Amino acid sequence: MLEKLFYPKSVAVIGASQNPEKVGYAILNNLIRHNFQGIIYPVNPKGDSILGLKTYPDINKIPEPVDMAIFAVPPAAIIRIIRESIHNIGSAIVISAGFKESGSKGVEFEKELKSLAEETAIPILGPNCVGLINTDSNLNASFAVGMPAKGNISFFSQSGALCTAILDWAIKEGIGFSKFISLGNKMDLTEIEMLKYLKDDPNTRVILGYLEGVTHGEEFIKVAKEVTQVKPVIITKSGRTGAGARAASSHTGTLAGSEHAYNTAFNQAGIIRAESMEALFDFALAFAYQPVPSGANLAVVTNAGGPGIIAADSIERSGVKMAQFSRETIESLKVFLPPTAALLNPVDIIGDAREDRYRNAIETVAKDKGVDAILVLLTPQAMSNIDSIAGVISDVYRKIDKPIFTSFMGGAMVESGRRILNKGGIPNYDYPERAVKAVEAMLKYNALKQTGKEARGIKYPVNKEKVRLIIDTCREKGEVNIPESMAIEILEAYGFRFPKRALATSAYDAAYIANKLGFPVVMKIASPDILHKSDVGGVIVDINDKQDVIKYYYDILSRVKRSVPFASIHGVAIQHMIKGGKEIIVGVSRDPQFGPLIMFGLGGVYVEVLKDVSFRIAPLNRTEAEHMVREIQMYPLLRGVRGELPSDFESIYDSIIRMGQLASDFPEIVECDINPMKVFDSKKSGCVALDARITISHK
Amino acid sequence: MLEKLFYPKSVAVIGASQNPEKVGYAILNNLIRHNFQGIIYPVNPKGDSILGLKTYPDINKIPEPVDMAIFAVPPAAIIRIIRESIHNIGSAIVISAGFKESGSKGVEFEKELKSLAEETAIPILGPNCVGLINTDSNLNASFAVGMPAKGNISFFSQSGALCTAILDWAIKEGIGFSKFISLGNKMDLTEIEMLKYLKDDPNTRVILGYLEGVTHGEEFIKVAKEVTQVKPVIITKSGRTGAGARAASSHTGTLAGSEHAYNTAFNQAGIIRAESMEALFDFALAFAYQPVPSGANLAVVTNAGGPGIIAADSIERSGVKMAQFSRETIESLKVFLPPTAALLNPVDIIGDAREDRYRNAIETVAKDKGVDAILVLLTPQAMSNIDSIAGVISDVYRKIDKPIFTSFMGGAMVESGRRILNKGGIPNYDYPERAVKAVEAMLKYNALKQTGKEARGIKYPVNKEKVRLIIDTCREKGEVNIPESMAIEILEAYGFRFPKRALATSAYDAAYIANKLGFPVVMKIASPDILHKSDVGGVIVDINDKQDVIKYYYDILSRVKRSVPFASIHGVAIQHMIKGGKEIIVGVSRDPQFGPLIMFGLGGVYVEVLKDVSFRIAPLNRTEAEHMVREIQMYPLLRGVRGELPSDFESIYDSIIRMGQLASDFPEIVECDINPMKVFDSKKSGCVALDARITISHK
Repeated sequence: MLEKLFYPKSVAVIGASQNPEKVGYAILNNLIRHNFQGIIYPVNPKGDSILGLKTYPDINKIPEPVDMAIFAVPPAAIIRIIRESIHNIGSAIVISAGFKESGSKGVEFEKELKSLAEETAIPILGPNCVGLINTDSNLNASFAVGMPAKGNISFFSQSGALCTAILDWAIKEGIGFSKFISLGNKMDLTEIEMLKYLKDDPNTRVILGYLEGVTHGEEFIKVAKEVTQVKPVIITKSGRTGAGARAASSHTGTLAGSEHAYNTAFNQAGIIRAESMEALFDFALAFAYQPVPSGANLAVVTNAGGPGIIAADSIERSGVKMAQFSRETIESLKVFLPPTAALLNPVDIIGDAREDRYRNAIETVAKDKGVDAILVLLTPQAMSNIDSIAGVISDVYRKIDKPIFTSFMGGAMVESGRRILNKGGIPNYDYPERAVKAVEAMLKYNALKQTGKEARGIKYPVNKEKVRLIIDTCREKGEVNIPESMAIEILEAYGFRFPKRALATSAYDAAYIANKLGFPVVMKIASPDILHKSDVGGVIVDINDKQDVIKYYYDILSRVKRSVPFASIHGVAIQHMIKGGKEIIVGVSRDPQFGPLIMFGLGGVYVEVLKDVSFRIAPLNRTEAEHMVREIQMYPLLRGVRGELPSDFESIYDSIIRMGQLASDFPEIVECDINPMKVFDSKKSGCVALDARITISHK
Repeated sequence: MLEKLFYPKSVAVIGASQNPEKVGYAILNNLIRHNFQGIIYPVNPKGDSILGLKTYPDINKIPEPVDMAIFAVPPAAIIRIIRESIHNIGSAIVISAGFKESGSKGVEFEKELKSLAEETAIPILGPNCVGLINTDSNLNASFAVGMPAKGNISFFSQSGALCTAILDWAIKEGIGFSKFISLGNKMDLTEIEMLKYLKDDPNTRVILGYLEGVTHGEEFIKVAKEVTQVKPVIITKSGRTGAGARAASSHTGTLAGSEHAYNTAFNQAGIIRAESMEALFDFALAFAYQPVPSGANLAVVTNAGGPGIIAADSIERSGVKMAQFSRETIESLKVFLPPTAALLNPVDIIGDAREDRYRNAIETVAKDKGVDAILVLLTPQAMSNIDSIAGVISDVYRKIDKPIFTSFMGGAMVESGRRILNKGGIPNYDYPERAVKAVEAMLKYNALKQTGKEARGIKYPVNKEKVRLIIDTCREKGEVNIPESMAIEILEAYGFRFPKRALATSAYDAAYIANKLGFPVVMKIASPDILHKSDVGGVIVDINDKQDVIKYYYDILSRVKRSVPFASIHGVAIQHMIKGGKEIIVGVSRDPQFGPLIMFGLGGVYVEVLKDVSFRIAPLNRTEAEHMVREIQMYPLLRGVRGELPSDFESIYDSIIRMGQLASDFPEIVECDINPMKVFDSKKSGCVALDARITISHK
């Protein structure tokens, strides 16, 4: 569908200009200067020719329909022209600003253009963008200065200025690109269409993106998940967190900021999130030039001790591991290395090492089965023949089946060596630490891809109809905070266990119920108007006899009436008290972008003070649920400390997955907290929910 | 004292050579080529002249004593020559390898050379180093290639290869240096002497270092603390952590790895630790070129939205703050900025901004009292006159009193602009994130400097003599694990409170004591051979009557005998049980490098699972103790959650400081844990230690 955008046979430049200061000139000039092989049609009502090309007064005067129209004219004109030339345009790039980004008038223009795109099915890039570059078709349909070398990195960006800066950088560094796409306002074509297209693009090996936000979160995850099974996607996402701005009534809602949602979504979609622009391109180089290492064991070959230690340090701090050499490897190294060399990892081949010693060392460690990838370090020393060493590394790389990364440290002395490495497809980094981080990103990609293979979502048999009925009833009454008794019914319908309980509407009723349930009991105010029952003195625990039940019944009512005089009171819930077990919290908060964000954590101070929680977007598979539990800092507490039995993990996973199922089945649920839920050990088995809170959206 | 090393009037090159492949040639050539203004004396028994200079067969044949002798001859010769020429050498650089780093023979040479240095008081740099560069005296006494520009950064490095690489980089980037020092084996002159010298060097504004370890930890902290009050010290410390290698019997000992010790030492000394070489030089540039911002509020001026958001993001993640503009600032910006500009921070002056708009925007935000520093971003756009903008920034900087940092993003298009900024003393960073981190480092320096002003160590009145007696007694007996009863006496002598207790040697004795102390009680086995009493069933808590005391007495004895048959048993300690309060841990572990490393944390699972602890090196002042408590993640728990009263913080600080005092007073104490200690709320007041363990060193 985007073939005409990336590989047009003919391009019309609407607003082509003679004036070198105009965008319409820059675009035309780029098309010509960078050897676009199709036909270029400048369109301008005035003049006969521009830059040697015959000019057409109107797109409809061009003798054939064009594959692509590039617009550098005001918004109103664009809308008019597209409307008049529907059948003559195969795809469009709207460079012009003056749309959504520029006030209410622009918003109107954009709305109109958008519905036009939908009507006509013409794919439109922009508006308000720098344009598009495809080195594979020699297409520079942008007003950016310069054209990158051919390569296998494709980059889409929500910031045009970044496109320009990165392009300039890529040209200087000689880094090759395949597609360079400025998304502009993302009115029609978004990151989703680009991901879909680039997935099948044979010239793209790694997809990079700069995004300030994502359009259609759920679709984005779905598509990205498919793409990342085929090739790596690395994205820098900027844009400040909305955490502070959200009003939430549950713990889950309070903790689930949009940054958590993005991190979670990226992880689940298999996307590597680069925390800085520098990391984005460092990672890109690794993926573009080298195969992903099949394991985490990195060998380091260096001509100096210091950089070797620096590399080892950052390996130790990362997810990468220092390879352990076999006895044979060490013996082989010994043969040709000088006596002062270090034979263990990192291999220090000493300052006077020339290309032969580098070759021998790299080939030797590459043969070791315990080595998955090699990092070669060089500092410029008197004896170092740097260019030859760079050549040897590129040469050895072609012969071995393991990825190589380098850090040639220095300035002018290593410059030509770095160029040789770049040509040889060896990613070089200014400092060893950055190389290690790139290797780490590759390993992360491997791991995410593996998890992503598992199908999303498990479906337990549940009583969906019952929940539908309760929610509809509440919505009819305009109740957004579902009364606790009903919240419990909803959760029970989805397989959660609650302790035995009943609602008392008089003190003697309460005593009777308590006696029947068995002591000790917990008493809680039952009111749809009170969300935080403890805060208003509405909860009393560990009551051991009937007299106390009667006394506390009146206590609770009077305290609550004092705090919340106008609350509607249904009575007091009496519940058998559950002792022992560990408190956990399972909840969901609906993210505006990505939907149901499931949270897991340990209850009490761990969630309140430590904010020790993990997130996933529902629906969930079992591995994801397992990872959620393992991710929290206090995980060892669940595994059991001081000789305790481990908690019933299967039951925790089950609870998390069920919460995901509930949230996926009922988009009306905005927030839900089960807090606390008690989990028992693997012998006693199971989880029991003690308190539940559900908020739904207005009808 | 090091004047003759950095500003020699005459230099002898021992081992000067005609052969361009020899180090002795490279050194002589560097001295000549980089215009050393003093007299150069090549020394070589063979030949009459080298590189046009008259050659002396022997240093003692030179007509005058030389300020500096540079050695490029074998170890044995060096030792002989120094011994024969004591009065003719003012300072020495030993370039030659073949010492400590090269086996047992070399170790002997180094020992001999070291004692010679001590005897003769000749300061010796090296051995096994690249040499020394001082741009202020046009001195290049090294075999490194090239000479950096003059500047105010000084750098010492424990890795010679890094010196070479960094030098090459500095020359290419045009970054100016004052001193460049390769420390080599640090036999005589170490980082300590360099810090002392550079502190008073008027040409050094910021001190950088690369270290793999520190010589004389306590002295290092003392000296660095003084230096950082005068100028910033930034150090990259590499070398793998020894955490795994340490055998420790206490919690403190287990958690206090050497990395913690280094981090703590650097912090207490006011040193900024750079986590990577990239960060080291990023920070250096900021300190070298700009004054430290007086506050954390950063204004961002940009010609594109994307980079502005990226900057804002990393500001939010860091210790830097986004400045809030005054109404006047916003009104002033509005006057000259186009309507589509963003007036709030970050100020987006739009893609077509030229130097005038940059000037106006920077000057305007600089006037705002709410702005402490300015970050200027540029992406190369069609209209950007980059060189002029760079010029304007340098110009504005001279007129305002606030620091400016820039990130000109891109490649060739911004290259000359970057050079102009560098000349103008404006630190430029490839990406905004790195600029923000540099600003953060400057703010951290300010904060550390402030804490460092306070005097080290508080002295409480304690019973030192008593502790001396107990420790000496134990040492006499060869007991390294001090029996609990004595450990308690030691700690009581230093002001710690323990619950009432007594030792029972029979079951009836135990019952009698328990009754006297008051129930509930805790019973604990008393044995010098058992460190982890709970593990062998040697502790029973919450015993409420005499019958139980008698029963448990026998229980404990039989359990312990089963687990540790040969333990010597003193009896069973009976202790009044303390209820309520929160568990904390206060301990000390002696670091081989830096001495007593004090640890604080919350007890129980927080220390065991979360490892939520903080460290400082004793002796401590009150602010440091306060920071230790605030640093732990669970600090809010001590402040009080759910309406609790805050803990008695003064009493916690007091305990930490007393532990520091004890550890400083008695270097024999290797490890000490008070775990748990109960801290009560600010009303009930105070801390009570429940369990104590002290290990001392062998006599």
